[in-house]
Amino acid sequence: MEVVQSIAQMREIRRQLALTPEATVGFVPTMGALHKGHGRLIQRALNTASLVVVSSFVNPLQFNDPRDLARYPRTPSQDHDICNKLGVNYFFEPPAEDIYPPGFLTTVNVSRLANRLEGASRPGHFRGVCTVVAKLFNIVQPHFAFFGHKDAQQLVLIRHMVRDLAFDIEIVGVPTERDKNGLALSSRNQLLDDEQRQKALCLNRALRRVHFLAKKQGITHCGELLQAVRSAINSAGEGVELDYAAIVSRTTLEDLSHIERGNTLVLVAARVGGIRLIDSTRL
Amino acid sequence: MEVVQSIAQMREIRRQLALTPEATVGFVPTMGALHKGHGRLIQRALNTASLVVVSSFVNPLQFNDPRDLARYPRTPSQDHDICNKLGVNYFFEPPAEDIYPPGFLTTVNVSRLANRLEGASRPGHFRGVCTVVAKLFNIVQPHFAFFGHKDAQQLVLIRHMVRDLAFDIEIVGVPTERDKNGLALSSRNQLLDDEQRQKALCLNRALRRVHFLAKKQGITHCGELLQAVRSAINSAGEGVELDYAAIVSRTTLEDLSHIERGNTLVLVAARVGGIRLIDSTRL
Repeated sequence: MEVVQSIAQMREIRRQLALTPEATVGFVPTMGALHKGHGRLIQRALNTASLVVVSSFVNPLQFNDPRDLARYPRTPSQDHDICNKLGVNYFFEPPAEDIYPPGFLTTVNVSRLANRLEGASRPGHFRGVCTVVAKLFNIVQPHFAFFGHKDAQQLVLIRHMVRDLAFDIEIVGVPTERDKNGLALSSRNQLLDDEQRQKALCLNRALRRVHFLAKKQGITHCGELLQAVRSAINSAGEGVELDYAAIVSRTTLEDLSHIERGNTLVLVAARVGGIRLIDSTRL
Repeated sequence: MEVVQSIAQMREIRRQLALTPEATVGFVPTMGALHKGHGRLIQRALNTASLVVVSSFVNPLQFNDPRDLARYPRTPSQDHDICNKLGVNYFFEPPAEDIYPPGFLTTVNVSRLANRLEGASRPGHFRGVCTVVAKLFNIVQPHFAFFGHKDAQQLVLIRHMVRDLAFDIEIVGVPTERDKNGLALSSRNQLLDDEQRQKALCLNRALRRVHFLAKKQGITHCGELLQAVRSAINSAGEGVELDYAAIVSRTTLEDLSHIERGNTLVLVAARVGGIRLIDSTRL
């Protein structure tokens, strides 16, 4: 595995790869602190493309809260080991001043979709995500890019951006990886203590409850399903605060009054001991 | 010359070209109504790259005034002839619904630089320009793209966007083409009658006056030079209205108090009989 630490170097590698037009490039953009969820994305990339690039960049532009940015976990040498063992070809970790040089002024925004849910709780978050992803796409020029289902709204926005701006990239969504108790894997889980980790299970419990009500009891009314989500979160007790729960269209992110099979996303966000966690499921 | 009328077709052509990695693609994005200024851009592209793509798309997103959009000149069959004779390889004229499909939400913006001068007079103009140019870049994936010096602020913004988002494209600026009287060629000139065309010469006269004062008389104070620009425009008489005159840094577009050799742009915009014209020069 080659570790690449500048845009210029990555660009040169990409130009060389273009001389072998039959090679395909799979790309997994991450913020580092890799866990088995990333492993699943990388595995999928390795199965899809002939060469895999993993990027690691904690993107300041997508953090609206400087404390959240400061405490975001960073485990670079562990990340190298994981990618190396999996068989990743290039590990791209550009410095922040390379991505955002002095006088950086350009932003990419998916209006409307970016202002709901996560975007409402974290103003500017998705502008930051779309801007850095567009830039990484231009540098890596992948044939395929892999994003997790857990960040469900992000996946919808990236797909929308790729369609709107005609990036010649196939976006592949990869199912959420969970620990044995059902907690969705997230780099932020590292910040939870044992008790908080136990309480954090309420997010997945809420989503499983929705599945049960929709599939076994035939409930389709979103108001009723959302009430069940709220109860599940609230019953986790002290230190757990619901941020939002929503049932929306997978294409427009508009609230649904009744679930539409194959086009429904259930999203939940909560703070557990001050750590913000999200989870989601499809119906 | 092949006329290409959809993104899908252009994409397929571009993918085929990628199989010959030694081929280089030069791209001239236009809004059609081609004149000798475009000819100069195309000639430069033909001299630089092994294959040339010219696009023609009157971009609704960059028009803040619907009347301006409606009366913008359109001469498609003449444009085909011109490009065919020059030796252009692909003429790309996508329909508007292909560029802006229903639910289009994504915008690319170069903040600050986009809000001055032309951007102040035409709110949203440069967001429209940057969005469509980014999309065309993603479709055509050129090695070189060619823009005229006349649209000086546009050239500064495109260069900034390309740097910020790391497009792997070399932007080439091409000097302004003028008619024998000095009028900068523009598709909008077709909308002028003979008298207006005569009056429109005041823009170039104003810029030549600045050159004379700066070079022959050694005047470096921008206030004094701008006063000369204003006088030249105002002396054109009735039907001519100055919109703005500015002397700015070529990199930051900030107003300069004194000219800086090699980094100075003089910009002027005026309405002549209701037709908005711009011109610019470098010092």
